[in-house]
Amino acid sequence: MADVARSAGVSLKTVSRVINGVSTVDVAMAARVRDAAGQLGFRANFAASALRSGSSSATIGLLIKDLSNEFYATIASGVAEVARAHQTQLITAHSGENAEDEMEAIFDLCRRRVDGLLIVPTGGNHSALRSEIDLGIPMVFLDRNPVGLDADSVVIDNYAGARDATLTLISEGHTRIGVLVDTLNMPTMRQRVEGIHAAFAAAGLPWDDTLLSTNVRGPAEASIAVERLLSLSVPPTAFFCGNNRSSIGALRTLWEQRRTEALVAFDDFQLAELMPRPFRVLRYDNRALGTLGAELLFRRISGEIFDPVTVVLSTELCPRGIQNFQ
Amino acid sequence: MADVARSAGVSLKTVSRVINGVSTVDVAMAARVRDAAGQLGFRANFAASALRSGSSSATIGLLIKDLSNEFYATIASGVAEVARAHQTQLITAHSGENAEDEMEAIFDLCRRRVDGLLIVPTGGNHSALRSEIDLGIPMVFLDRNPVGLDADSVVIDNYAGARDATLTLISEGHTRIGVLVDTLNMPTMRQRVEGIHAAFAAAGLPWDDTLLSTNVRGPAEASIAVERLLSLSVPPTAFFCGNNRSSIGALRTLWEQRRTEALVAFDDFQLAELMPRPFRVLRYDNRALGTLGAELLFRRISGEIFDPVTVVLSTELCPRGIQNFQ
Repeated sequence: MADVARSAGVSLKTVSRVINGVSTVDVAMAARVRDAAGQLGFRANFAASALRSGSSSATIGLLIKDLSNEFYATIASGVAEVARAHQTQLITAHSGENAEDEMEAIFDLCRRRVDGLLIVPTGGNHSALRSEIDLGIPMVFLDRNPVGLDADSVVIDNYAGARDATLTLISEGHTRIGVLVDTLNMPTMRQRVEGIHAAFAAAGLPWDDTLLSTNVRGPAEASIAVERLLSLSVPPTAFFCGNNRSSIGALRTLWEQRRTEALVAFDDFQLAELMPRPFRVLRYDNRALGTLGAELLFRRISGEIFDPVTVVLSTELCPRGIQNFQ
Repeated sequence: MADVARSAGVSLKTVSRVINGVSTVDVAMAARVRDAAGQLGFRANFAASALRSGSSSATIGLLIKDLSNEFYATIASGVAEVARAHQTQLITAHSGENAEDEMEAIFDLCRRRVDGLLIVPTGGNHSALRSEIDLGIPMVFLDRNPVGLDADSVVIDNYAGARDATLTLISEGHTRIGVLVDTLNMPTMRQRVEGIHAAFAAAGLPWDDTLLSTNVRGPAEASIAVERLLSLSVPPTAFFCGNNRSSIGALRTLWEQRRTEALVAFDDFQLAELMPRPFRVLRYDNRALGTLGAELLFRRISGEIFDPVTVVLSTELCPRGIQNFQ
């Protein structure tokens, strides 16, 4: 501020008044102060104080892929709640489309002086983050474990959830189950498909790969996939949707065509109980991905030392939709 | 980095290898480097370079209230799309519960070296932001106009939307309409209620204040409000819900009780068309609040000079829900 005053040729008090928007300052003088402040990068006083002190910024960062998906938004909301309880600001950044963009976004958050990071990783190798953690920015991974890095995580029991739900469908007499999943580059999707395969193997049933639709990214692709599966010469008698986005598309198509095939969907979602046909969801505590992850992070930030932990959230199969619909 | 090397008594190359997590560095030496880096605040090299250059950070900030609400999440998603197209990072922060926390969150984002800010304001007076804007951080307000500050905004035509929808209900014979709104401290809610009042006045009908439920914050409160209104000695024959959260609760209760009262709801929402009863939504381009706001902001960031503009998005009444449900 003293530099700004010197450069603008005004008193320190005048600089302060301009910065604070006091309107009694002469217009030309105020402009001179702003010019000087701009040239000297005065804005960055927070960055300057952070440089000096090395102290806590009372901020944590969250990296997620897509805010418009209820799944990620609920995680963020859980994190925000815990951050508030710790009087800590939360800033959220968006991972890009690929692993490189994701790492860039993580390093960017680190440079913005956060006390710790929560990351929903989309893929790639995370070993390059070791140095950031060692330099004092703890990280907790949500929904997926980090790759090439031993760090805390909170994940869902994808394998057992998908396996047990499939065993239930098999016990009800279904031997052909149409499966809709997002890209198998996502470990969560791979785990879910592996669970389905395990159920078929355990029941001694053959698995037919034509019943698997991959790269189902949203409701529209899910509708197309369901139509393809229904048009097979021996169509499935049940569907397994890998996430909430695909189940919304599948529900829409099955409803529009008044089909009665069974449907099991990973992820519960808002209004699921008002859908016009019965189905089942693999529910888990979505919000807990955020709250438990944030609590782990604050333990790390407070300096607590413990071996990296992985918290695994279990799933349960729950009825949804209107049962007596006709 | 040179300071770190000097302080730790090692070569620059060693510092670089420790920072980059190369595992062949002697453990004790690596620890010494990390200590030196920690003491010297080496992490903050980004902040340091920002201080020096005063240049663009290629980042914009977004301040929203509640990520778990689809309304805000969709805005954020629109902003993220435009930011990506401008090769700009988006960081999102959460406004607190009151106007003071909101201002604190805005100033915090400013100190983190953003090129501009998008704000969904929750209330309070924004005149203190004048100096930040003058110092070179343009701001665009979404969904609500700023108070005490002349700045760009993108808003919804709440008044005309609510008035016209109410006139439609009146033209269908409804003279008692139950209204559910969030707190009237929100200008958007006040505008919607004023639109409803205007429709009653235009039709020459008296307005009965017992039909207004305020402070309806979510689905649970909406259910209670609907039950209260239905239990009145002369209950309403139609309902007007002020936002998506209240319409979800109202829909649930009206469905559970198999009530056939008309329902009009501000805000469209995912799966609205699969609700088990007909109703109507006041739809608008929710995502455009984010995209148009972000485009305005990037024009400001690029140095374009124009008088503050307010973009007003119109609404349209659309049928939703399953029409032939029984």
